[in-house]
Amino acid sequence: MIIQLSKHITADQRDQLIAAITKLGYKANGVTTQVANYIVAIGKKEFDIRTLGNLPGIEDIHRVSDDYKLVSNKWKVNRTVIDLGDGVRIGDGSLAIMAGPCSIENEKQIQDTIDHLKQNGVRIMRGGVFKPRSSPYAFRGLGIEGLKLWYSLAKQSGIKIVTEVMQVSQIAEMVDYVDVFQVGARNTQNFNLLDELGKVDKPVMIKRGISGTIEELLYSAEYVFSAGNEKLMLCERGIRTYERASRNTFDINAIPILKEKTHLPVIADPSHGIGIREFVEPVALAAAVAGADGVIYETHQKPEEAFSDGQQTLDFAESARLINKLNKIQQLSFGN
Amino acid sequence: MIIQLSKHITADQRDQLIAAITKLGYKANGVTTQVANYIVAIGKKEFDIRTLGNLPGIEDIHRVSDDYKLVSNKWKVNRTVIDLGDGVRIGDGSLAIMAGPCSIENEKQIQDTIDHLKQNGVRIMRGGVFKPRSSPYAFRGLGIEGLKLWYSLAKQSGIKIVTEVMQVSQIAEMVDYVDVFQVGARNTQNFNLLDELGKVDKPVMIKRGISGTIEELLYSAEYVFSAGNEKLMLCERGIRTYERASRNTFDINAIPILKEKTHLPVIADPSHGIGIREFVEPVALAAAVAGADGVIYETHQKPEEAFSDGQQTLDFAESARLINKLNKIQQLSFGN
Amino acid sequence: MIIQLSKHITADQRDQLIAAITKLGYKANGVTTQVANYIVAIGKKEFDIRTLGNLPGIEDIHRVSDDYKLVSNKWKVNRTVIDLGDGVRIGDGSLAIMAGPCSIENEKQIQDTIDHLKQNGVRIMRGGVFKPRSSPYAFRGLGIEGLKLWYSLAKQSGIKIVTEVMQVSQIAEMVDYVDVFQVGARNTQNFNLLDELGKVDKPVMIKRGISGTIEELLYSAEYVFSAGNEKLMLCERGIRTYERASRNTFDINAIPILKEKTHLPVIADPSHGIGIREFVEPVALAAAVAGADGVIYETHQKPEEAFSDGQQTLDFAESARLINKLNKIQQLSFGN
Amino acid sequence: MIIQLSKHITADQRDQLIAAITKLGYKANGVTTQVANYIVAIGKKEFDIRTLGNLPGIEDIHRVSDDYKLVSNKWKVNRTVIDLGDGVRIGDGSLAIMAGPCSIENEKQIQDTIDHLKQNGVRIMRGGVFKPRSSPYAFRGLGIEGLKLWYSLAKQSGIKIVTEVMQVSQIAEMVDYVDVFQVGARNTQNFNLLDELGKVDKPVMIKRGISGTIEELLYSAEYVFSAGNEKLMLCERGIRTYERASRNTFDINAIPILKEKTHLPVIADPSHGIGIREFVEPVALAAAVAGADGVIYETHQKPEEAFSDGQQTLDFAESARLINKLNKIQQLSFGN
Repeated sequence: MIIQLSKHITADQRDQLIAAITKLGYKANGVTTQVANYIVAIGKKEFDIRTLGNLPGIEDIHRVSDDYKLVSNKWKVNRTVIDLGDGVRIGDGSLAIMAGPCSIENEKQIQDTIDHLKQNGVRIMRGGVFKPRSSPYAFRGLGIEGLKLWYSLAKQSGIKIVTEVMQVSQIAEMVDYVDVFQVGARNTQNFNLLDELGKVDKPVMIKRGISGTIEELLYSAEYVFSAGNEKLMLCERGIRTYERASRNTFDINAIPILKEKTHLPVIADPSHGIGIREFVEPVALAAAVAGADGVIYETHQKPEEAFSDGQQTLDFAESARLINKLNKIQQLSFGN
Repeated sequence: MIIQLSKHITADQRDQLIAAITKLGYKANGVTTQVANYIVAIGKKEFDIRTLGNLPGIEDIHRVSDDYKLVSNKWKVNRTVIDLGDGVRIGDGSLAIMAGPCSIENEKQIQDTIDHLKQNGVRIMRGGVFKPRSSPYAFRGLGIEGLKLWYSLAKQSGIKIVTEVMQVSQIAEMVDYVDVFQVGARNTQNFNLLDELGKVDKPVMIKRGISGTIEELLYSAEYVFSAGNEKLMLCERGIRTYERASRNTFDINAIPILKEKTHLPVIADPSHGIGIREFVEPVALAAAVAGADGVIYETHQKPEEAFSDGQQTLDFAESARLINKLNKIQQLSFGN
Repeated sequence: MIIQLSKHITADQRDQLIAAITKLGYKANGVTTQVANYIVAIGKKEFDIRTLGNLPGIEDIHRVSDDYKLVSNKWKVNRTVIDLGDGVRIGDGSLAIMAGPCSIENEKQIQDTIDHLKQNGVRIMRGGVFKPRSSPYAFRGLGIEGLKLWYSLAKQSGIKIVTEVMQVSQIAEMVDYVDVFQVGARNTQNFNLLDELGKVDKPVMIKRGISGTIEELLYSAEYVFSAGNEKLMLCERGIRTYERASRNTFDINAIPILKEKTHLPVIADPSHGIGIREFVEPVALAAAVAGADGVIYETHQKPEEAFSDGQQTLDFAESARLINKLNKIQQLSFGN
Repeated sequence: MIIQLSKHITADQRDQLIAAITKLGYKANGVTTQVANYIVAIGKKEFDIRTLGNLPGIEDIHRVSDDYKLVSNKWKVNRTVIDLGDGVRIGDGSLAIMAGPCSIENEKQIQDTIDHLKQNGVRIMRGGVFKPRSSPYAFRGLGIEGLKLWYSLAKQSGIKIVTEVMQVSQIAEMVDYVDVFQVGARNTQNFNLLDELGKVDKPVMIKRGISGTIEELLYSAEYVFSAGNEKLMLCERGIRTYERASRNTFDINAIPILKEKTHLPVIADPSHGIGIREFVEPVALAAAVAGADGVIYETHQKPEEAFSDGQQTLDFAESARLINKLNKIQQLSFGN
């Protein structure tokens, strides 16, 4: 049960409400976000909702039968829209495109990518400065200095930054230089990280775990929301299956299922979803037509020289062709 | 290695050729299809292809490094097109739509479906008369009498029939009443059935196994082709994964991967691929935009009364809407 | 609901009983096996069991809430024991050992294997004469002549034969030469084959599907039992997962779960379960200690020269060592 | 390539060695652990090992073809033994038993468990004070105060503590109160956490990821070792598959495979591995007989009242019976 509190609720009224919830055998979890105040009440007994509804200080009460609550589609009137400023919005009905290299490498690479994006009307750039790598001996990213360099170049061009945060201690040093914090597939259930990202007023994109269920992804988002951050989106990036012909199995089913279960924007990552450069395009188009709010993919001036993930990275010509096709998909009117 | 034989090859020349192949340490498998004669030579040693190429009676020789040979994309100039007659073709660049109930139930249901298909310009009807069911106590289909009834109605309307064959002994009784034999997901590796279907001059659509790999699907097709039947297509219908939010995980990656690996048409089954009625449409559209040559889905006048699979079956209004959208996808020109 | 019929039930009494069942809204499935007559009643409504229990001709009535009925552990007093004759029994509390090559190759290989088994007190020999192979160009087995040769040698030595049957038409030609029909992992849901094996009075061992669930395996056994054959056992042989360090993932959990769900003997196949020769032994021991009624594994005089599966085949020294350890496991008394 | 450095190597000699490695086109990673100094050289070119071997300050050089190096079985003469003090050792050939509740709940529960363990000769107690939970509204553990309470009681009884650490900031506050840090299945690839645990002189047990591969588990251990901590063990706890009859699929294959690939002790967690109380015992016995160095399982005075995981938790009678059987397995001599 989600209880939206009135802005004018007094402390006494709030205490009274919590007492009433507790008396019903429910546990009251207070949630304060950038947008509103809620009490999420967890319990199982049936009761007459009017018992609470008549108390002062309440704006609205919603029964939500899902185990995740605040991210559920069952209570919110409008879908969540993420506003990155300067007219860049995700989840407003348009198709958001985010592109860039796997790893941020150097100034020239950043600038080349920015130029490519600008020429093609893309406003959000992806890239990693903290890289989770299976082997401790692999390249682990340029770190915070790389991010600052990237930020200075991106800001000049009006390009927004989405990049991965790997641990709690990085949040504070990164927060001024990112537009969207990305939680990677290996950290989807790093609950401490999610808790802390709930305390920040910056959008967060959570990738589905390497073999995470759709439900677990929603729970992970519930962590961030319940800790105070409503600016959330989810990302399908392929799951681990027995099939070896592709790096991962992009779960196209997850797109419409997530759109139905949650009010949060749903992004598709076809690069990791299939892991094979020549097939990134059809998977991206498929995700778009299936209802994704955005697509995030890897592109690099020279994929074969990329520090990481070159085998699934588009060159700029391929990227431009994909953007063009995505735009055509978006303009496709089914007239219903 | 695939050796296409000349139509004018003599028995002596053929013997000489086989002797030469055997001398190279290869095993020669003779293959005679509706279309041509081949020798598929299996072996590992490297040799100078001219050793064979100069022998009489050979039209062409192709090295095929894949373990499957005849179904590989590496030797055939043109993609396979399946012609069902009366202008109904699969794999010719258009998008083939096949729709109908899970199970054939009775005359009215058949006629209702045919009427629905005709109104929407669909030429191929799916339906099951032999139903593989997990439980021996479940409805197992109307059998051959159901097929004959269906055939008589379909023929009057110019509708083609695709239906599942479950065992070798059914082939002969079914062959005059079907346009496409479907091999179901539980029989993808029923090698005896595949062998026998190779001896028939009717198109065969092989569904991917419940947890079959893409490679295994290609091998299964190789069985049918090498036994003499080139009229083959493949069907992606979702795979078994850990995810429980959908019945299966539709492997969208398989569409472009199969298109690249084989010259055979690739069909998508979104009904089984996601297993949830309301989401069949986005998965169907996704498959179409990713390059599928056709879509096969379940529709029924009253899905809630269907003998089987009602939870993933579209009603006729939903079906008409899907057909309309699929047609729009098909008209979408990316101009490349 | 399973209704065991009295041996003395009259045709009239049986008709009366079926009428009563039908009136309750249940579907009555008559089942006649080598051992007894049953009616399996399928339906959902609750009713007072005495409505039926008082009718004449009934020996016992059992409510079975599982969807599979006859193979369920919930009604049978004693576990099923398979008697192969000459004192060879499976499921009687001892640990049955079945060993032999993947493929039957020639007379010498058969005799060598028989000698090895006899020296080590093993009474059942495995081997394939009809081989399901992914590629149509691979060795497909010696066929029925190979089986006859094997049978003549085995009979002389008192060795029992377990071998795979791939299709319905093979049953009749094989039946006189096998002691146990094996249904392979690719045929677990070949329902026509299961139906026909239900009509034979020879034991059947069903292998779990390549990615079959435990429940599907039980349903497959229900096919055979309900078609008339109670002489059944099940075999865990590893499932398909994402892990690539082993050929399959042996599902050790399935051993105790199957033993609890069904009264049928449960056999373990560690050779396919892990697929790596040096690790067959620990998996075999693990299955035995977890409660398996038997172990089936591959052994060959010279594994490196075996026609198939050499990489997971023990040589005779390794096989002798495993047998010795399995015997020690069996003698281990936990005293509870 | 792993280069073990002499204790007497001078700074100059070390610089010279690194220069020589770099000149060969390899990257030199210096590693200092509690036990020794190494240089791990990563590269691909072939070269004559004597080029380096003759330099001063080297104790030994090992080629290791695996991508993980320090945890590989290919260079270390002896298997790793973890000494927890007071005669409690893991990996020395005995079978280590670790048992206790899922969550630490209160003083009485701790003391009851300690009493149970002492009565049955178990020296290591498991329990969670920081609990990773899918839902943010679930019980998240007693935290550091719970750990301190537990420590004071355990110390009096000579019981060692293994408990999960969830994030970097917890290491310092926990380090004085734990004997083994456990890295949970959701943190197997939390590389920052692994790095930091490499700087601590306390044993670490890494659980396999929820759908982690065996290779990824070894890489995660490589992180800890290469950051300086050799006191490491690995834990198989079941993987995520399609099978729904058990919570996870315990990968029995992983036990012998890990034992062959690494010199680290391998522990089995049957509680999470199957997730069903009545079947924990057979899985535990199976793991022991397959070669595990230890077993960790959940036990509680009253499983039905446990704060978490009650459905897979043994009561003390079941626990005592399991310990008794594990001891018998351990005494089993195969005489080889």
